[in-house]
Amino acid sequence: MSYIIGVDLGGTYIKAGSVSKDGTLLNQTSVPSNGEIGPDAVVAQIAKAVDTIRQKHGGEELLGVGIGSPGMVDLDGGTVKYPPNFAGWKVFRLGDEVAKKIGVRVEVENDANAAAVGEQKFGAGRGFNNFIMVTLGTGVGGGFIVDGKVFRGESGGAGEIGHITINYDGPLCGCGNRGCVEAYVGQKYLSRRVAEQLKSRPDSLINKLIGGNPENLEPKIISQAADQGDAFALEVWKETGRYVGAAVAAAFNLFDVGVLIIGGGVANAGKPLFDSIEETVKGRVLSPIRPRVKILKAQLENSAGIVGAAALIA
Amino acid sequence: MSYIIGVDLGGTYIKAGSVSKDGTLLNQTSVPSNGEIGPDAVVAQIAKAVDTIRQKHGGEELLGVGIGSPGMVDLDGGTVKYPPNFAGWKVFRLGDEVAKKIGVRVEVENDANAAAVGEQKFGAGRGFNNFIMVTLGTGVGGGFIVDGKVFRGESGGAGEIGHITINYDGPLCGCGNRGCVEAYVGQKYLSRRVAEQLKSRPDSLINKLIGGNPENLEPKIISQAADQGDAFALEVWKETGRYVGAAVAAAFNLFDVGVLIIGGGVANAGKPLFDSIEETVKGRVLSPIRPRVKILKAQLENSAGIVGAAALIA
Repeated sequence: MSYIIGVDLGGTYIKAGSVSKDGTLLNQTSVPSNGEIGPDAVVAQIAKAVDTIRQKHGGEELLGVGIGSPGMVDLDGGTVKYPPNFAGWKVFRLGDEVAKKIGVRVEVENDANAAAVGEQKFGAGRGFNNFIMVTLGTGVGGGFIVDGKVFRGESGGAGEIGHITINYDGPLCGCGNRGCVEAYVGQKYLSRRVAEQLKSRPDSLINKLIGGNPENLEPKIISQAADQGDAFALEVWKETGRYVGAAVAAAFNLFDVGVLIIGGGVANAGKPLFDSIEETVKGRVLSPIRPRVKILKAQLENSAGIVGAAALIA
Repeated sequence: MSYIIGVDLGGTYIKAGSVSKDGTLLNQTSVPSNGEIGPDAVVAQIAKAVDTIRQKHGGEELLGVGIGSPGMVDLDGGTVKYPPNFAGWKVFRLGDEVAKKIGVRVEVENDANAAAVGEQKFGAGRGFNNFIMVTLGTGVGGGFIVDGKVFRGESGGAGEIGHITINYDGPLCGCGNRGCVEAYVGQKYLSRRVAEQLKSRPDSLINKLIGGNPENLEPKIISQAADQGDAFALEVWKETGRYVGAAVAAAFNLFDVGVLIIGGGVANAGKPLFDSIEETVKGRVLSPIRPRVKILKAQLENSAGIVGAAALIA
């Protein structure tokens, strides 16, 4: 049987896995990224991970290797530009260099875009030619599918929905801008705001779940409390949904699209968050878009990085 | 000499003009739109205007007719959907109907998109494959050029930059959403805010220019006062630039583009407004886009409607 290898290039680890042509994850491995040594070391580690997977497949045909990478990606040569968390990387033809080393077809895309392609081919995006994928995690990532293809913009940097301003006077964001949606719902900012609000909500179950230590606060805890009906936790997801919804409505109005797929850890908040996003988006988009609004949960979940990267080849 | 006819379909008047292949406006005419009678009456009026222009060109070759229309436009059949200010219009194959009547090639586009195409072919957008055109007038219109073509989205409604939320908790906009940039800088909202602020600025020259009557307040007056160094008027443009800049930065981050062309009456505010927009955008966009930021004034000005429509054929 033929297979694809998907590579999820992270700041600390490289995860690689074999994926069937219908998107099933078969085998996987992980190696340190070695990003601090430089791009050549990363290429060597990718080759090593690919080799490990290849051995498990004996003589089966490897159709190609897809790589989801942080940073801006230029399709010409699979060039990765200034990836965050890779000191001294600058501009590097990652795709060409990996292809030289392993002798098969290699495609590289930005990781958020690869996740969107994964959902399009194997997940919640099947059947939609136009949708926005938002990943709610440490940051707020975006991948836009327009006319069935990744919308890349002038230089591959398009889709930065995390840096839509939802309040021109809002809190400072890590990007230098003010009031970006990421500065409201990115994991660090979300936890900080909730910790602050918790002070006036001593009755909330969250206090018990974190053992009184705000350092333990994370989205999973808020969800646990919400699942048990904690009023404050439910309010947190409602408020979070309002922020996300305002940014998504702006993006829907600009792109004339109505389908949103939500992935990332925070998406596990489920119904309280999704209902609030849907209500907000429907209340805010222009009327011709309203009947097309659909808010869906990403389906690839934990394997999104590897399967999304593999989808670049499929 | 061959020529094109551009038709600017407005709610009250149809303006039509002949345009040379290099974008020079040659002859023009105007007739009532008759929109209240229905789409067939509008087609008859367009044909009449085209006929008037044609007669002025004797035997010269008419290359085609471009129409800039309000509402969403579907390229299939030049279909115009639910144009504002045309009661009972709904969905109508305007392009096909006009072509049947006049026997030449007809292209229809949304008016904001046509204005962007006009700037691309004959104005400030020459040499740029990717830019955003924003029209600051009664409303805030947008036309996005991506890879040299109009970005239309799923159904021709893309580019609604006026309805980016710049404050999720902001004032109500005519579209039903809150805190849209149009609800800050659309002419009516702008005048209302300035009238309110004027109460505490009795020293402003604007008071004198409007003869004490807030009904007389319009952007042209604010510009007159600013030109004479009125401190409050300069603050108004600075504030307006901050609102526009926040929305433009969000659009730049989503589309990975750095060139903005500003048209419409409010663009005549000139340097105080443009400087504030540029400063705001540069402070807000993601760093890879910053070096590409260019804020330009539209060049077609008063003839933008006709020449932009003609550019659909050129």
